[in-house]
Amino acid sequence: MDRVFNFSAGPSTLPLEVLEKAQAELLNANGSGMSVMEMSHRSQAFQDIIDQAEADLRDLMNIPDNYKVMFLQGGGTLQFSMVPINLLRNSRKADYIVTGNWAKKAFEEAQKFGDVVAAASSKDRNFAYIPKTTRESFRPDADYVYITTNNTIYGTHWNYKALPDVGDLTLVADQSSNFLAEECNVTDFGLIYAGAQKNVGPAGVTIVIAREDLLGHAPENTPIYLDYKIHADKGSMYNTPPCWSIYIAGLTFQWIKKQGGVAAIEKHNIEQAKRLYDAIDNSKMFKGTVDPEDRSLMNCTFVTGDADLDKKFIAEAKANGLVNLAGHRSVGGMRASIYNAMPDEGVDALIAFMQKFETENK
Amino acid sequence: MDRVFNFSAGPSTLPLEVLEKAQAELLNANGSGMSVMEMSHRSQAFQDIIDQAEADLRDLMNIPDNYKVMFLQGGGTLQFSMVPINLLRNSRKADYIVTGNWAKKAFEEAQKFGDVVAAASSKDRNFAYIPKTTRESFRPDADYVYITTNNTIYGTHWNYKALPDVGDLTLVADQSSNFLAEECNVTDFGLIYAGAQKNVGPAGVTIVIAREDLLGHAPENTPIYLDYKIHADKGSMYNTPPCWSIYIAGLTFQWIKKQGGVAAIEKHNIEQAKRLYDAIDNSKMFKGTVDPEDRSLMNCTFVTGDADLDKKFIAEAKANGLVNLAGHRSVGGMRASIYNAMPDEGVDALIAFMQKFETENK
Repeated sequence: MDRVFNFSAGPSTLPLEVLEKAQAELLNANGSGMSVMEMSHRSQAFQDIIDQAEADLRDLMNIPDNYKVMFLQGGGTLQFSMVPINLLRNSRKADYIVTGNWAKKAFEEAQKFGDVVAAASSKDRNFAYIPKTTRESFRPDADYVYITTNNTIYGTHWNYKALPDVGDLTLVADQSSNFLAEECNVTDFGLIYAGAQKNVGPAGVTIVIAREDLLGHAPENTPIYLDYKIHADKGSMYNTPPCWSIYIAGLTFQWIKKQGGVAAIEKHNIEQAKRLYDAIDNSKMFKGTVDPEDRSLMNCTFVTGDADLDKKFIAEAKANGLVNLAGHRSVGGMRASIYNAMPDEGVDALIAFMQKFETENK
Repeated sequence: MDRVFNFSAGPSTLPLEVLEKAQAELLNANGSGMSVMEMSHRSQAFQDIIDQAEADLRDLMNIPDNYKVMFLQGGGTLQFSMVPINLLRNSRKADYIVTGNWAKKAFEEAQKFGDVVAAASSKDRNFAYIPKTTRESFRPDADYVYITTNNTIYGTHWNYKALPDVGDLTLVADQSSNFLAEECNVTDFGLIYAGAQKNVGPAGVTIVIAREDLLGHAPENTPIYLDYKIHADKGSMYNTPPCWSIYIAGLTFQWIKKQGGVAAIEKHNIEQAKRLYDAIDNSKMFKGTVDPEDRSLMNCTFVTGDADLDKKFIAEAKANGLVNLAGHRSVGGMRASIYNAMPDEGVDALIAFMQKFETENK
């Protein structure tokens, strides 16, 4: 089989150009005589790779100097713990907005470490929307407010121009599934983190962007790997970092720059998602599952309303080289994840297949 | 430059055959139509990869059914915390044998979590030997005794046939730098862990092998990623695992099987190390730095006794395609790391270069 169109929610499709470069230099990167997988993390060759990756990311997101960038291991799951351990530093209170499964997991984990409440939730309608909040929704002495900016499973996202008004509280964002997909002001947040395996690279690296003043407040007996300051002070080199994943992330950053940066990527993502949502809205068979104004640009969820027909659609799509279209079990139906690297041809092929399927299954 | 002989202490050289296979299928693995980096960890394609990796590892090490195998993130550094957090379960005492830098770091980290003492140390002679212990060296109610089986920086290793007599106490081993390089009885240990980036694969995955009865005793407020039982119960799939690193580790396991398994690898490692140590011992210029009976099979440390001459050796070796031969700053001199994947040609080229250098610099 040739390469398929892979609509997986993550790990997910990567830019072909990135994969081809990684393949070409897999045995001998940049004339070093070795694979990036074989490079000492203390070598100049690898230092150049991680420095370039950080510089490109700073450039793409316009990250101010008073924010540290870290390349860590452990995925979002470790961040669910690291955020409260490091950031519950004064009142030891934090307010979470629960917009789906990942926010819920983060919220539950944080309760181990302080006085943590759900300031808002969209659970009442199976997370089909982004709840509205006001400044009064949050405790005035909360150490931080936590949101998940894109909800992979339910298919909603936060409009970065309508973030919750937290006043001078610290806003923390899990951007795992829309990192570098939409323009955001880093300064709106105290801390941003993202697992790489959606828009950036292979699983195994998590990027953390944190304002300096938030670091250095972890309790004394914190497991050393869980203290942000350890990593920030050593440029992600306190211990051996996940070198290969960082290298691929770096190649992806360069690819995004070549596409015109995050503004251009966002414009493209909006157009691509619109084509797919229009196809859903114009169909008599398919229905979207979330409130239109909160629809994710990354994860388009839809159903036919008939579980057997959903199954048939997913199976026939797969046979046509359109794979990983099954929705998460908590939503059912279909989910097409169209991260940055999804080519237009993939979305167009999916739309054409949907129309053909609808005609054939009237 | 063509591929070099890479004597890095880790990340380090990988079998060329493994790299070539990874390169060949980088865009399309096993007819899946996608890279392993793009595979959903919930897909059958990836499940097959991790299952095969675990089965091959169990086969290679003869791991009994009552031991769980986990593929985790966070490196040895996270294990320094996870071991005491999970294993300090009764007396909350642990006894460490400090044979070098990594053992010392593990020992210091464990002190955060219980009553942890150094039962023995070889610090008095800059870690140039493995200290002798008796059953009486350990507290009778210690929850575990901890050793580092190979000391990357100092170039010593533990003879697996002369492990410390811990009676019925639980022995824990950091095998990061001699994992799958020497035959060991898994049942001599309660828990074994190893960062991949020496003998197994790229940085980013840590393998943990733990006896079942040791799991499930982490305190209630343990950060969820740090609880072994969470990972063991979910077959390393509680969260997204470092898929690519696991895939390369799996290819390396298959390569070791093709070499005849760990017994054959160990035999080869002994022969290879002997050739290099003989060259050191037969030279008038080079001297080994550790007690001969405790010499590592993986990391051969040696010096000329003249720091400038050491530097010249390292620089000229590099110019001859023999790279990463500088010793760690705490030992100085040279260190040739000759992990499983180092070909005979690499060691032979190093020996020939040492002889040439000695002749030229009499």
